[in-house]
Amino acid sequence: MATSNPPLKDDLDIVIPTIRNLDFLEMWRPFFQPYHLIIIQDGDPTKTINVPDGFDYELYNRNDINKILGPKASCISFKDSACRCFGYMVSKKKYIFTIDDDCFVAKDPSGKDINALAQHIRNLLQPSTPFFFNTLYDPFSDGADFVRGYPFSLREGIPTAVSHGLWLNIPDYDAPTQLVKPRERNTRYVDAVMTIPKGTLFPMCGMNLAFDRHLIGPAMYFGLMGDGQPIGRYDDMWAGWCVKVICDHLGLGIKTGLPYIWHSKASNPFVNLKKEYKGIFWQEEIIPFFQAISLSRECTTVQSCYIELAKLVKDKLGKIDPYFVKLADAMVTWIEAWDELNSKDSKKTNGK
Amino acid sequence: MATSNPPLKDDLDIVIPTIRNLDFLEMWRPFFQPYHLIIIQDGDPTKTINVPDGFDYELYNRNDINKILGPKASCISFKDSACRCFGYMVSKKKYIFTIDDDCFVAKDPSGKDINALAQHIRNLLQPSTPFFFNTLYDPFSDGADFVRGYPFSLREGIPTAVSHGLWLNIPDYDAPTQLVKPRERNTRYVDAVMTIPKGTLFPMCGMNLAFDRHLIGPAMYFGLMGDGQPIGRYDDMWAGWCVKVICDHLGLGIKTGLPYIWHSKASNPFVNLKKEYKGIFWQEEIIPFFQAISLSRECTTVQSCYIELAKLVKDKLGKIDPYFVKLADAMVTWIEAWDELNSKDSKKTNGK
Repeated sequence: MATSNPPLKDDLDIVIPTIRNLDFLEMWRPFFQPYHLIIIQDGDPTKTINVPDGFDYELYNRNDINKILGPKASCISFKDSACRCFGYMVSKKKYIFTIDDDCFVAKDPSGKDINALAQHIRNLLQPSTPFFFNTLYDPFSDGADFVRGYPFSLREGIPTAVSHGLWLNIPDYDAPTQLVKPRERNTRYVDAVMTIPKGTLFPMCGMNLAFDRHLIGPAMYFGLMGDGQPIGRYDDMWAGWCVKVICDHLGLGIKTGLPYIWHSKASNPFVNLKKEYKGIFWQEEIIPFFQAISLSRECTTVQSCYIELAKLVKDKLGKIDPYFVKLADAMVTWIEAWDELNSKDSKKTNGK
Repeated sequence: MATSNPPLKDDLDIVIPTIRNLDFLEMWRPFFQPYHLIIIQDGDPTKTINVPDGFDYELYNRNDINKILGPKASCISFKDSACRCFGYMVSKKKYIFTIDDDCFVAKDPSGKDINALAQHIRNLLQPSTPFFFNTLYDPFSDGADFVRGYPFSLREGIPTAVSHGLWLNIPDYDAPTQLVKPRERNTRYVDAVMTIPKGTLFPMCGMNLAFDRHLIGPAMYFGLMGDGQPIGRYDDMWAGWCVKVICDHLGLGIKTGLPYIWHSKASNPFVNLKKEYKGIFWQEEIIPFFQAISLSRECTTVQSCYIELAKLVKDKLGKIDPYFVKLADAMVTWIEAWDELNSKDSKKTNGK
């Protein structure tokens, strides 16, 4: 099995938010066991989460997060899978792969198990090409290249910061679509990876996602969701909008497409509707806000981009709802906490 | 066979540029026979082109083009497949499908013949969504929809003007790539159609292309190529850049992906290099030119957009080479000829 695993096993952490025993790891064992897991236990910290034998992991519950971050723990959501971003912060690795605990190994059209991690790593290691569209999709995949008319000066590409994977079986739909199409299943295996063009926003789903922490980590904040917040299920969307705008500004690429995972179970559409409904109308103003953003030339690091973005969120989105003022403050807190845990002499997480 | 054919048979013409007998039509018979063909004979007009029995067609050679357009025939290329755009001009139908005569029926992964025309029609009849990326690709295909986080206000979409199909077997590579990868074949069937995002240019290939003549026809000019010109093999690219900029301005969509055709034969890379080499370095300036274009608000028709574009080409690209001054003039001539043949009381082509 070892040969089918990607390289970089010392450079990647797998981050899993959960409220239950991690039986789903059994299916992933051949692919995940060589890697270190960071498990973020959401909800009741007194509950015990069982992790199958043989996995190398660290587990953080809410008490741990509060202890490590102190008052800054307020920026980490509770009772929402948005808590996963704490794992990005405590990791010391270059790459992160995050996956939901209801996602299983998918099969490719030939019936072979898909090593999602290997494909994500391939996506991250190969350049992105956001400045011009390649009609044969990923020019770096086997048997493909740039097509006639693709400018040669753009073929070197730029570094890839994010690899966004997809889902067979249960598609990632909003509550209204779930309600309208309760039986819809995604059976279409689209054999493609592509760079999302510069200037184009996309809905980033956190279910099956990998990224380069060193390139974009501080922008991968999943916002304030769940307990005590007026909104849920927009954690990954929020991160995606912020990340895309910052990647466009800094000259970093985002890919979407392969790999697929098998999403086993639809969440309850009635519960989802309650979490989502404010997001559904807020996003009608949020998207034009992100589409219009132009970060200043002084923003040359992810952190400085993110702090400027937080200011813009407060100024422009604060008018929609006081929630965005709170979110903007949390964005600043997140960066402070990130820098504290990721400074060279940081010892905080060693106490764990 | 009739049930597998798309509707609209009285609304669509198939345009084929050629220098040889059209034996390739035998393979397309079940799909093409219900439609009217417009054959543009390139090269020696005294040569006879055989068309298999049973097809309904009109054929134009260089003498016909000269007779119909008079001095304006100068805008139609000679000894280059760019001459095909004359067919767009003389058609009276709403939709055009154009295909090269070395393209055959491809098979889908299940081994079934692909009805390329039916898929193009489907692409053109369904809306485009260029303002936000849908990670499950075409939201209007069976079993798919807009994913969570896709703004509801953008789900109605906008009219689709162009459907760009792809090629199995011989990919559409430039001469340098052909020379470097002589054995590369495209075997990857990517089961997707997607809208090219607003603001993103793409390399449009004329091999397997459909469009709505009423929406975008006057911008589908394939430029000055071949005989007497310093450049070839950039006819479709030129049209693609112009069309994309105008579609973005007018709120029209362009899709790429399915359907595939089977491209049987690579053209000679040495001959191609000779035709292309100026384009290869010119495009390094042309692409930024098109990326920076912002058409004025007064341009509300395809024709007015195209005339403004011609002015910009003369002003900005004329500096690269006198060829672009000539091309800009030909763009204006093209529009004049288009309007002449497509005015309501136009009788010119009826004389044929």
